[in-house]
Amino acid sequence: MPGSTFGQTFRITTAGESHGTGYVVIIDGVPAGMPLSVDDLQPDLDRRRPAQSKVTTQRKERDEPEILSGVYEGQTTGTPVAIVIRNKDVRSKDYADIKDKYRPGHADYTFDAKYGFRDYRGGGRSSARETSVRVAAGAVAKKLLASLHGIHIVGYVKQIGELKTEVFDPAAVTLEQVEANIVRCPDPQVAEQMIALIERVRGQQDSIGGVAEIVATGVPPGWGEPIFDKLKADLGKAMFSLPAVLGVEYGAGFRVATTRGSENNDVFVAQHQSIMTETNRHGGMLGGISSGMPIVLRCAVKPTSSLPLEQRTVTRDGEPTMIRTKGRHDPCLLPRFVPMAEAMMAIVLADHCLRGRAARMREE
Amino acid sequence: MPGSTFGQTFRITTAGESHGTGYVVIIDGVPAGMPLSVDDLQPDLDRRRPAQSKVTTQRKERDEPEILSGVYEGQTTGTPVAIVIRNKDVRSKDYADIKDKYRPGHADYTFDAKYGFRDYRGGGRSSARETSVRVAAGAVAKKLLASLHGIHIVGYVKQIGELKTEVFDPAAVTLEQVEANIVRCPDPQVAEQMIALIERVRGQQDSIGGVAEIVATGVPPGWGEPIFDKLKADLGKAMFSLPAVLGVEYGAGFRVATTRGSENNDVFVAQHQSIMTETNRHGGMLGGISSGMPIVLRCAVKPTSSLPLEQRTVTRDGEPTMIRTKGRHDPCLLPRFVPMAEAMMAIVLADHCLRGRAARMREE
Amino acid sequence: MPGSTFGQTFRITTAGESHGTGYVVIIDGVPAGMPLSVDDLQPDLDRRRPAQSKVTTQRKERDEPEILSGVYEGQTTGTPVAIVIRNKDVRSKDYADIKDKYRPGHADYTFDAKYGFRDYRGGGRSSARETSVRVAAGAVAKKLLASLHGIHIVGYVKQIGELKTEVFDPAAVTLEQVEANIVRCPDPQVAEQMIALIERVRGQQDSIGGVAEIVATGVPPGWGEPIFDKLKADLGKAMFSLPAVLGVEYGAGFRVATTRGSENNDVFVAQHQSIMTETNRHGGMLGGISSGMPIVLRCAVKPTSSLPLEQRTVTRDGEPTMIRTKGRHDPCLLPRFVPMAEAMMAIVLADHCLRGRAARMREE
Amino acid sequence: MPGSTFGQTFRITTAGESHGTGYVVIIDGVPAGMPLSVDDLQPDLDRRRPAQSKVTTQRKERDEPEILSGVYEGQTTGTPVAIVIRNKDVRSKDYADIKDKYRPGHADYTFDAKYGFRDYRGGGRSSARETSVRVAAGAVAKKLLASLHGIHIVGYVKQIGELKTEVFDPAAVTLEQVEANIVRCPDPQVAEQMIALIERVRGQQDSIGGVAEIVATGVPPGWGEPIFDKLKADLGKAMFSLPAVLGVEYGAGFRVATTRGSENNDVFVAQHQSIMTETNRHGGMLGGISSGMPIVLRCAVKPTSSLPLEQRTVTRDGEPTMIRTKGRHDPCLLPRFVPMAEAMMAIVLADHCLRGRAARMREE
Repeated sequence: MPGSTFGQTFRITTAGESHGTGYVVIIDGVPAGMPLSVDDLQPDLDRRRPAQSKVTTQRKERDEPEILSGVYEGQTTGTPVAIVIRNKDVRSKDYADIKDKYRPGHADYTFDAKYGFRDYRGGGRSSARETSVRVAAGAVAKKLLASLHGIHIVGYVKQIGELKTEVFDPAAVTLEQVEANIVRCPDPQVAEQMIALIERVRGQQDSIGGVAEIVATGVPPGWGEPIFDKLKADLGKAMFSLPAVLGVEYGAGFRVATTRGSENNDVFVAQHQSIMTETNRHGGMLGGISSGMPIVLRCAVKPTSSLPLEQRTVTRDGEPTMIRTKGRHDPCLLPRFVPMAEAMMAIVLADHCLRGRAARMREE
Repeated sequence: MPGSTFGQTFRITTAGESHGTGYVVIIDGVPAGMPLSVDDLQPDLDRRRPAQSKVTTQRKERDEPEILSGVYEGQTTGTPVAIVIRNKDVRSKDYADIKDKYRPGHADYTFDAKYGFRDYRGGGRSSARETSVRVAAGAVAKKLLASLHGIHIVGYVKQIGELKTEVFDPAAVTLEQVEANIVRCPDPQVAEQMIALIERVRGQQDSIGGVAEIVATGVPPGWGEPIFDKLKADLGKAMFSLPAVLGVEYGAGFRVATTRGSENNDVFVAQHQSIMTETNRHGGMLGGISSGMPIVLRCAVKPTSSLPLEQRTVTRDGEPTMIRTKGRHDPCLLPRFVPMAEAMMAIVLADHCLRGRAARMREE
Repeated sequence: MPGSTFGQTFRITTAGESHGTGYVVIIDGVPAGMPLSVDDLQPDLDRRRPAQSKVTTQRKERDEPEILSGVYEGQTTGTPVAIVIRNKDVRSKDYADIKDKYRPGHADYTFDAKYGFRDYRGGGRSSARETSVRVAAGAVAKKLLASLHGIHIVGYVKQIGELKTEVFDPAAVTLEQVEANIVRCPDPQVAEQMIALIERVRGQQDSIGGVAEIVATGVPPGWGEPIFDKLKADLGKAMFSLPAVLGVEYGAGFRVATTRGSENNDVFVAQHQSIMTETNRHGGMLGGISSGMPIVLRCAVKPTSSLPLEQRTVTRDGEPTMIRTKGRHDPCLLPRFVPMAEAMMAIVLADHCLRGRAARMREE
Repeated sequence: MPGSTFGQTFRITTAGESHGTGYVVIIDGVPAGMPLSVDDLQPDLDRRRPAQSKVTTQRKERDEPEILSGVYEGQTTGTPVAIVIRNKDVRSKDYADIKDKYRPGHADYTFDAKYGFRDYRGGGRSSARETSVRVAAGAVAKKLLASLHGIHIVGYVKQIGELKTEVFDPAAVTLEQVEANIVRCPDPQVAEQMIALIERVRGQQDSIGGVAEIVATGVPPGWGEPIFDKLKADLGKAMFSLPAVLGVEYGAGFRVATTRGSENNDVFVAQHQSIMTETNRHGGMLGGISSGMPIVLRCAVKPTSSLPLEQRTVTRDGEPTMIRTKGRHDPCLLPRFVPMAEAMMAIVLADHCLRGRAARMREE
């Protein structure tokens, strides 16, 4: 079974390659009666697009979405919403170099191993440009979640290299704070240092990794399925489906390795007629089902594999050679990763929002 | 859509609760012609079962599997393999305590929020006992992978509390080394310290977390699907579907946050007619597709939530109260987590092994 | 992908073979809070079982279901309901005959072609005995539909050989009328003739085909999905998944070939505050979505392939030979087909009942 | 779960409405390395398009497909093939009439019941124009089947009104014979009568139904899954997912009701080293798995519901009114139905072709 579809009830399917004609996503399962237009999609697409600032790649392409179907008189009809984004800044450059050489850290070799050959232009199907249509679908999911439950999803850069911010309350970070600087770190002082670090790394023809934190507030308790489709499992899959992610953790995350149960357990309390926990080391899910507390997760994102620096590698035939990636690459993926991860979180939550409607004999 | 099914081509569906009649798993998609008997299942079930040593819970129950279908004259027939494990040591104890109180760190509250009520006996569907049938299915998957590709999957405990071992070559750890001690740490000296630590923690009526590392060797390059069903995404989902997992990372994992691209990229080289990488910071997958290098992942497992220590919580009605879990719980989940995680890795790999057969016009 | 799972939101997975240990079905997606016990399953199982009357096979086996999971204190919990039915009357007879010979009309040859070999005892996985667990799952679905919407599903035999009944109003046939005779034809006079015909055919060591009609009343308008998962498409798949079905038709069915649009269209009218059609040639679905009118379909069921009469065939090696099926077979499949088809209709409707909850922004 | 996706391993997802911007299909699972271009799609699209002859609607629109992705240097890459067809002849006519009135035989009322409102222009999502992208996907499937197995799929009109042809050997009908006349009946004499009948019916402002027969030759034995995903079940679902289909039958079909087992069973014989049946009353599938004999099925297609004749109906508010469909409709759907049904058969067979690769331990 092929793997271009994600989700069960709010379900997306994508197609497209970096240097082909364009990308398309079909979102099946958007309920009827939600206002929707391209204006809902553009802001997040602009947050994801290249060349948005001096810390990203300078490849110029504004992603302009076209809604092909599923919307009538400004409202979703219940039938699938298809969104097309055409490729524009497709340089007819010479790809002979990567045609026969395997770029370290990229999927060139693994695609060849799988399919026997590949569309090597700009990475083809493995290009991160595929996330453009995921971000568009994520904007639809965000609108659904906000309309139905007042849910808000905000992501931000928490760490780049050794520079790290400790936001005291992840659930209080606002989109405005995040968008106040080009590196998307809500801590203005650390943000400035991060920007300086990225510029230094770029000057060294190198790249650098980091960590992003994504938070959803307003998710009601009871979302997620008990066994395989735990909310944490589906979110984990969603995050790992993004390029360059090598680690995902919730709440206390890897720190749980060194803690005792008596320290780690979050105590239940009753406040304002509802049950919650005093602390949120569990990251908003217990038994894989939402607890009503903010959902908090972090992704480790590796340094960009494409480097202007010369690197050793081999050709398709196994001959040792050198490779150097000319041109336009992000010295750090994190700033543009934030909207991608928000989108995937929104898609998972929209799916479980609708799936959860079948849990009881009668809907409340 | 409910969530008791996992996998596409090698597909498992489980049912059962901790204190009900028993558990069942249906494994659909086992190819015809593989020798199979209960003897293939018992060893891993014994590695998972409670009361296997002084560092685990003392709840006594040996899981005895019955193969209900799908095997004829000692061979799989291509039709679904159903395996039943009946519950035995089901104590008719008084559950009044947890019936009305929410245990911290457990799914009691979230199940109530989802379904309106719950089978509270021993955690019901959220009990880790459900992993018994996953381990049985994993044993089938392991046999398939070993038969077809000589793939071996070995997991072990890497860290408990502050005690950590650095295995120099994860791919060289053997099942014998792991099983040589009750804590399943292949480093005998660290293992001894870990056992002492767990006993100390148990004496304090507390519990402790840790990290397990799971490794698959022999996976050919080219497994996994490019976008959503990346091997790392499906493995991530599989691991997060296990109870108590709060973090998953591959290869260099969260350390990538502090590294440069020039350090992190693994260099391709040709050896013995095949292409590989000199190092394995990528954890065996590039673009989400296997590279032929060992697949290496780590899971952060939280300290057991059930504690003999008294903890604060609330009742269903929100009244503050105290709770204390009598009895039989693991002071540290890690030793028994190892076979569960191996099983889930095997199930994912078996699935992609079969899925990959459709990638090209003609099979090789 | 294997094919032992059916449905999306109300989803069943079956395993088991005719002469193995037994059968199991896992029903995932039964909403929490529905009363359920084995007493709900037994009546339909008894309607399906062999040896229920002189017009069926005399193979004696009463199907006694065990609910393994998903029910607590007499109510469904929202977690999967597993039902096991063990095989009992498994005669250790000599199967050498069918081991090497291909029975005409059976799946012996096609299973060998698919898997390379087969469990030939009693047809193995291809035995109609697999429908026992479907009937059990169907009983759960029927209860769900009756509880939530007052939906009732009744099937009956409409034709055997040339004997045919014209029920004037399919929606008015009751279970009592159907169960009033052993052939399950609600027309008592035709029923008597049918019984005589079946006995005559049996005396000739032959078998005979027929047509069953299945009707659901009370289905609200709006169930089904517009394109591939039309209600008529999912019902069609469900019916064709039953053994021996060679034709399925809705409403006017094949008669539409000879009618004009002006005759065939059903006119909309308003009655008692609701919109309906004057006639029901469309069979209760328009555009594949339920119209609120009774859902009416018919299945053509072939004569039993197993015959006491000697038939020509070949061995596995292609050698011409003769075959004769000793013993216990239904001279006509129709009376026992009725509960199977009702079950599959119930499963499809339960699935779409729950799926439909996601169609609009807010549930009504 | 929404219903715009069909198939498991060769999997299509469609979006689009009659009077929106256009249609798109994403075909996921096309194996790498198959030559493909728009020239492969155009012939079947032209067979499906309106205004192709005097017996079809005169609405003028040539479907011009654009391949958006999945093809590189003239070959499929293994990644999803997206095909876009834009709407052109979208008349901005006054739809006030059908906005508030329910057209008999159409999905207007059922869509309103499901979603609360609908895109009423030209039927919106329920328009048969959606089959254009299915036909494009079917052309890809046909090419796959022909390349890998030499399979050919041919459909034709067997009956219109009382006019019926008895093709002696369905497996011998050629595409050339079918395309030799505008009604797509391979019997030239009956074809002429059918054309005259359709013109007469059109003159009466009426429409007429019929039966199409679809045949696949060259399908190897062993395709299809034993229980729910029987080949006959998936083909049945595929056919019933097409608009206006009220009946589907295989091989002997509904005639089995009146036959004896001794007449109906097809005898196995060995010819040219392979096993086959002397006759093909079983329609090419036994136990739902292909037998190697031609797959033969028939669909009953109702007369077009849209009529120039005035018909009674009600408004959304239940007020009695009259409706008359102006303009461009097919007086008989059959000639254009043929390529739609061929496409769906091809998609099902391509899916099972790839699914079947997982049936055994090692591929042959």
